[in-house]
Amino acid sequence: MRHPFDEAIELNVVDGGLQRGRTHPEWANMVGPFGGITAAVLLHAIEQHPDRFGEPLALTVNFAAPIADGEFDVTLQLARSNRTNQHWIVQLVQDGIAKTTATAVFATRRDTWGDIQSRMPHTPVPEEAIEGGLPDFIRWAGLYDMRFVEGVVPGKGVEPGDSSTTTLWVRDRAQRRVDFPALAALCDIFTPRVFLRRGALPAGTISMTAYFHVGQAQLDTVGDDFVLGSAHANVFNRGYFDQSARLWGTDGTLLATTHQIVYFKDGK
Amino acid sequence: MRHPFDEAIELNVVDGGLQRGRTHPEWANMVGPFGGITAAVLLHAIEQHPDRFGEPLALTVNFAAPIADGEFDVTLQLARSNRTNQHWIVQLVQDGIAKTTATAVFATRRDTWGDIQSRMPHTPVPEEAIEGGLPDFIRWAGLYDMRFVEGVVPGKGVEPGDSSTTTLWVRDRAQRRVDFPALAALCDIFTPRVFLRRGALPAGTISMTAYFHVGQAQLDTVGDDFVLGSAHANVFNRGYFDQSARLWGTDGTLLATTHQIVYFKDGK
Repeated sequence: MRHPFDEAIELNVVDGGLQRGRTHPEWANMVGPFGGITAAVLLHAIEQHPDRFGEPLALTVNFAAPIADGEFDVTLQLARSNRTNQHWIVQLVQDGIAKTTATAVFATRRDTWGDIQSRMPHTPVPEEAIEGGLPDFIRWAGLYDMRFVEGVVPGKGVEPGDSSTTTLWVRDRAQRRVDFPALAALCDIFTPRVFLRRGALPAGTISMTAYFHVGQAQLDTVGDDFVLGSAHANVFNRGYFDQSARLWGTDGTLLATTHQIVYFKDGK
Repeated sequence: MRHPFDEAIELNVVDGGLQRGRTHPEWANMVGPFGGITAAVLLHAIEQHPDRFGEPLALTVNFAAPIADGEFDVTLQLARSNRTNQHWIVQLVQDGIAKTTATAVFATRRDTWGDIQSRMPHTPVPEEAIEGGLPDFIRWAGLYDMRFVEGVVPGKGVEPGDSSTTTLWVRDRAQRRVDFPALAALCDIFTPRVFLRRGALPAGTISMTAYFHVGQAQLDTVGDDFVLGSAHANVFNRGYFDQSARLWGTDGTLLATTHQIVYFKDGK
């Protein structure tokens, strides 16, 4: 049996600039699919384009409109390719309407000096962290095993507080190995930060950016293990807030940093 | 006399999807123009598009190739417009080649609960901070008045260290008021973080994202005053590093958060 992640990112190549996919019921969110799976689909579309070289370095996904259940087209344009970098413009289209727009940079990496400036926080191991996650009606969340270190989503017995930080261990529940599309999806697993401050409210990501900090060989060391994620907001103001997050492997390697701008309605 | 910023962002509207501009010698960087002025140009192109509504919320600029001195075309596509958000795809083109690609979200704002989670650090006032900046041959830097609180660029008498953080007060030297294009440019004023760790090296921004956290009325309170900026890297690895930065008004309002992915060569 194939993993629902592989089913969801599967795309049929129509021609060089067009691929066709379909939404997957197990990745359903409140409205349309989980944003992380859409990011994974768009990244995967570029990965399998015949002109692609290098590995993902940067991805920006703009959620322009809800994706309806069913088929969608992914259009790809290689805007610019140079010796080490490729710049892609990608759109997810249904019925002629752009539902998602994206840009991506693919790049070759080379050996240089390096250092991790944002170190992994000291935390309990996953086995000692709090199992939990999103309510059952958020279908995609059931595909992940989440163990909370800090900032459990408010709900029964958990009140909103002053912090917008969540730190958690997360892995695919079926332990599918982490590849770049999976890492892109993990960049979007954090519930809207406003929930921690104000409780559950209507909220949705408008734009997210992910920076990938490892090449394939370093990513391979993650395997099917847990990844530690930590997310916080910098500001909530006039209907929008931001989120910045980091994802580390168990050995402390910083795999990705990711940022979002999110709308919210607080009924005021 | 017009300010060189207003001269640099001036664009002639050719038709609904095409505007024409030209590089400005005072905004020259090592190779091509300062990335911040390119970001400002692209934002300004959307601002003056007849179909634009709302204010800038998110901007991602991908620096695909060096911009040559002279004229350039800006192509604009409104990918999607809904009740409160607009999604734009913009490119800067010279001789048929995409030099820069960008996506932007414009949005209307509404009154809601709000809070600043990333508070402005306590710092000396600008008058007590260290005047300085980039070497004279970085022409655009002379247009800004920079007062360093932390993380002066290494050079004569300043050695690289363990921190990648710079905190500084900055304002336009001629005290041009801060509007959204100016705020976009300020998002890119920080020298490459790798300089603080390894000294000056070949380095350049590949992609930057800016989130704007205030509307026009709040931005107007900044006026021509200093803005406090603080930037740090999360990781340096295999030829690339990231940067995250925040910009506050003197009253502590978080005006923008901004992120970059940058290449570097360290000769290893």
